[in-house]
Amino acid sequence: MEWKTSIAGQIGAETVIRGYPLTELIGSLSFAEAIFLVLKGDLPTEREKKLLEATLVAIIEHGIAPPSIVAARMVLSGGNSINSAVAAGALTLGDFHGGAIETLAKLLQESLTPETDNVRILAKRIILDYRQNKQRVPGYGHKLYKRDPRALKLIQIARDLGFNGRYIDLALAIQDELEAGSDGKPLPLNVDGVTAAILSEMGIHWRNGSGLFIIGRIPGVVAHVVEEKMRERPFRRLPEGTHRYDGKPIRHLKGK
Amino acid sequence: MEWKTSIAGQIGAETVIRGYPLTELIGSLSFAEAIFLVLKGDLPTEREKKLLEATLVAIIEHGIAPPSIVAARMVLSGGNSINSAVAAGALTLGDFHGGAIETLAKLLQESLTPETDNVRILAKRIILDYRQNKQRVPGYGHKLYKRDPRALKLIQIARDLGFNGRYIDLALAIQDELEAGSDGKPLPLNVDGVTAAILSEMGIHWRNGSGLFIIGRIPGVVAHVVEEKMRERPFRRLPEGTHRYDGKPIRHLKGK
Amino acid sequence: MEWKTSIAGQIGAETVIRGYPLTELIGSLSFAEAIFLVLKGDLPTEREKKLLEATLVAIIEHGIAPPSIVAARMVLSGGNSINSAVAAGALTLGDFHGGAIETLAKLLQESLTPETDNVRILAKRIILDYRQNKQRVPGYGHKLYKRDPRALKLIQIARDLGFNGRYIDLALAIQDELEAGSDGKPLPLNVDGVTAAILSEMGIHWRNGSGLFIIGRIPGVVAHVVEEKMRERPFRRLPEGTHRYDGKPIRHLKGK
Amino acid sequence: MEWKTSIAGQIGAETVIRGYPLTELIGSLSFAEAIFLVLKGDLPTEREKKLLEATLVAIIEHGIAPPSIVAARMVLSGGNSINSAVAAGALTLGDFHGGAIETLAKLLQESLTPETDNVRILAKRIILDYRQNKQRVPGYGHKLYKRDPRALKLIQIARDLGFNGRYIDLALAIQDELEAGSDGKPLPLNVDGVTAAILSEMGIHWRNGSGLFIIGRIPGVVAHVVEEKMRERPFRRLPEGTHRYDGKPIRHLKGK
Repeated sequence: MEWKTSIAGQIGAETVIRGYPLTELIGSLSFAEAIFLVLKGDLPTEREKKLLEATLVAIIEHGIAPPSIVAARMVLSGGNSINSAVAAGALTLGDFHGGAIETLAKLLQESLTPETDNVRILAKRIILDYRQNKQRVPGYGHKLYKRDPRALKLIQIARDLGFNGRYIDLALAIQDELEAGSDGKPLPLNVDGVTAAILSEMGIHWRNGSGLFIIGRIPGVVAHVVEEKMRERPFRRLPEGTHRYDGKPIRHLKGK
Repeated sequence: MEWKTSIAGQIGAETVIRGYPLTELIGSLSFAEAIFLVLKGDLPTEREKKLLEATLVAIIEHGIAPPSIVAARMVLSGGNSINSAVAAGALTLGDFHGGAIETLAKLLQESLTPETDNVRILAKRIILDYRQNKQRVPGYGHKLYKRDPRALKLIQIARDLGFNGRYIDLALAIQDELEAGSDGKPLPLNVDGVTAAILSEMGIHWRNGSGLFIIGRIPGVVAHVVEEKMRERPFRRLPEGTHRYDGKPIRHLKGK
Repeated sequence: MEWKTSIAGQIGAETVIRGYPLTELIGSLSFAEAIFLVLKGDLPTEREKKLLEATLVAIIEHGIAPPSIVAARMVLSGGNSINSAVAAGALTLGDFHGGAIETLAKLLQESLTPETDNVRILAKRIILDYRQNKQRVPGYGHKLYKRDPRALKLIQIARDLGFNGRYIDLALAIQDELEAGSDGKPLPLNVDGVTAAILSEMGIHWRNGSGLFIIGRIPGVVAHVVEEKMRERPFRRLPEGTHRYDGKPIRHLKGK
Repeated sequence: MEWKTSIAGQIGAETVIRGYPLTELIGSLSFAEAIFLVLKGDLPTEREKKLLEATLVAIIEHGIAPPSIVAARMVLSGGNSINSAVAAGALTLGDFHGGAIETLAKLLQESLTPETDNVRILAKRIILDYRQNKQRVPGYGHKLYKRDPRALKLIQIARDLGFNGRYIDLALAIQDELEAGSDGKPLPLNVDGVTAAILSEMGIHWRNGSGLFIIGRIPGVVAHVVEEKMRERPFRRLPEGTHRYDGKPIRHLKGK
């Protein structure tokens, strides 16, 4: 078992991150620029920086209702530390809670090649494959919106910044193709889906998809956990009337 | 059990964060500004923004050796998801691993009042208290440095931005007082300690201390976990020669 | 960093646990006997075995309402693995959720010495100390019962098995003393409290208190997580009407 | 979001587990019997009880080297609670660390039907499927043993107790078939594999496979975490000489 890393370490007396002395980065980079550097290995361009800032802001917080926040507050409520409760929030961010980013980013990055000249045809082929395997394409659909306003905003920002936009085009072509076969039901590219397209535009490997979502959402989790600590009494139980036992009726041990 | 939050929610059709519509924030704020808003409830000033960016960059990543990175890589290595491994990193960030921020910030914020006119006298009184209770003041000392270069850099940035600096002054007065009684052993304000002083300068409640460290360090943890996934083979065991059994010698069950 | 352990390892070709070859233990010990061996370092006597079996059964499961079960189900519901969800259950078992065992066991084991000849006098002194420090003695009180039936049952079993009972006597003396000063409010030794007394009777160090509770409760957590996986749909959100935003009213960015 | 469970709850004044009043179970069941009841919904027969006790003992502890123990000790070492550290152990028990139990149990339970009359033919068909899909059958192989002594012991116990043995027969037929095509390399049914077969013999659904492994291994994790707390100094870092930075050489920011 050898431990090696290309992310950070010591070169002589300097602590370096991806080669840059850390003391040089402090005060020179924004946090989002440093995140880009840590994940991708190089500094972002000015427009990559702006797009990443916008994407992380879009993810940061969405209220008390999602399972990650409930789990984090429950852990705190049992009498545990801030970092344990935040960890429970991260633990909850699985396949159905931000996981679509990684899955769709993989699909986009592995489907689109330099040779692709028509994203509509590619989108049709992708949908066909998914339908034959009876799978759903991740990153589409929203329970409230016909179009997700956060997704629209991020796409607009990416266009305004002059991104090439082939991954976004493919993601939108998939949306159109899905809706063409959905009997009028809207299946909009949602905030997970657009994040998948945007990290692909920035050249970030799909393997970082879940990680990027965790980075973006953790500040919200922290705020909720601190609020729970400062405003609520410990030991939240489910209230009477919200739960019930529907198992075997009463019975007794025999011959014991 | 009622669930209420002042952090984010719906007002009519808008998702708001601390009152601001989320779609307005996307593209307008940097990620660090949004972090400030989520944690403190209001937007930072320009100099608060710059100081927070610098602080988060200082925390972001410090190589493969700390226990949080080893734990995170071990969890991935057992065949687990990215978010589980990142959660293990957060779990490790306890009292001895970033925890000094919260403890020292509490001390600084509860000791320094508008009436305090001499931080040296206050520092002396604090040290006396700690010595009488046989406790160590958290946030001081470094195994390599006489002065921690990251701490020096952050203090310089805070001064240049025109921060009042009373919390920094108190933190440095404690350093001088500690060193006055340490027989020449350096006990520099370290990166945890300076973070405690800086978040106090920005008016962030000490309860957010651990959370701020987690927010800052999670990108580094993500990068390590993704690197482990992409470069290493699964199931890291301790290598032969690094571990040993020092328990009871061999013995056998009787009468079983 | 050297890794040494007295719990288990290799002696020649044998895997041993506390000195005993593992293959000898399989089929010879009950699971509870093996737990005792792993934690304490020696095999239990017959009556210690019986008392430990009874204690672990008393802990195993208490329905869907406690925060540990809600957190575990929430983690699963986000689209995560069985072991991640079980880990969230363990994460929740903190100071207010089983934590009283360790705290009370420490108190009992550090207070009671071979020289103690009167547990009533000792109980009075303990209560006095706690009252002076404005602390609550952990392990007492129940929202439903005047006497906790599980505690009564475990005490009866310990008496019937012929345990000396000095730790139980002290725990009950503390109960009487607490109730003498509670204006008629019942403050019964609860299941956490009795577990603290019982592990002390068995000579298990108080440091194992939280661990014993986790060992006992994990099977219940596993059953809930598997039930969630097999019976429920993913992504549990708090239902409308159970949560609300009580933060700042709507406001807008200026000059951005 | 409604919370319902068939595992445990209140019927009138009684807390019941799978219908049985909890106070009746305390002192009547062994811990392993209660585990069986909680997971499967009914009490085990005498021979099921004995086989489950043996299986859980076989799993309980295997030394300090596996990643689950290293992760758990690292979390404690960062200055965290016993339950957080134990949770990190559970987090590590993923696809490559006990996960084979669930995968193989699924395969066995879904392949073997009442109509199966020849397990050798079934084994051949299974292997063929796996080879065509370029997958490995989980639960086979050991780095030290030609035959895993723990697996042999458990099979012997199951045979002696008079279990029908069709799942064991199928698991062994797969072993023979794998070895027939491995050029003399031993691919013995290992302790994970035999556990899969045994829980199938006991009629426990494969979904409980990972959970059963966690239940069995948690006592070992607890013992290690308590030992770390009582014997070791905090903050384990990787020692110098075991890790290295192999990333970009030193470079500097331009124009910042």
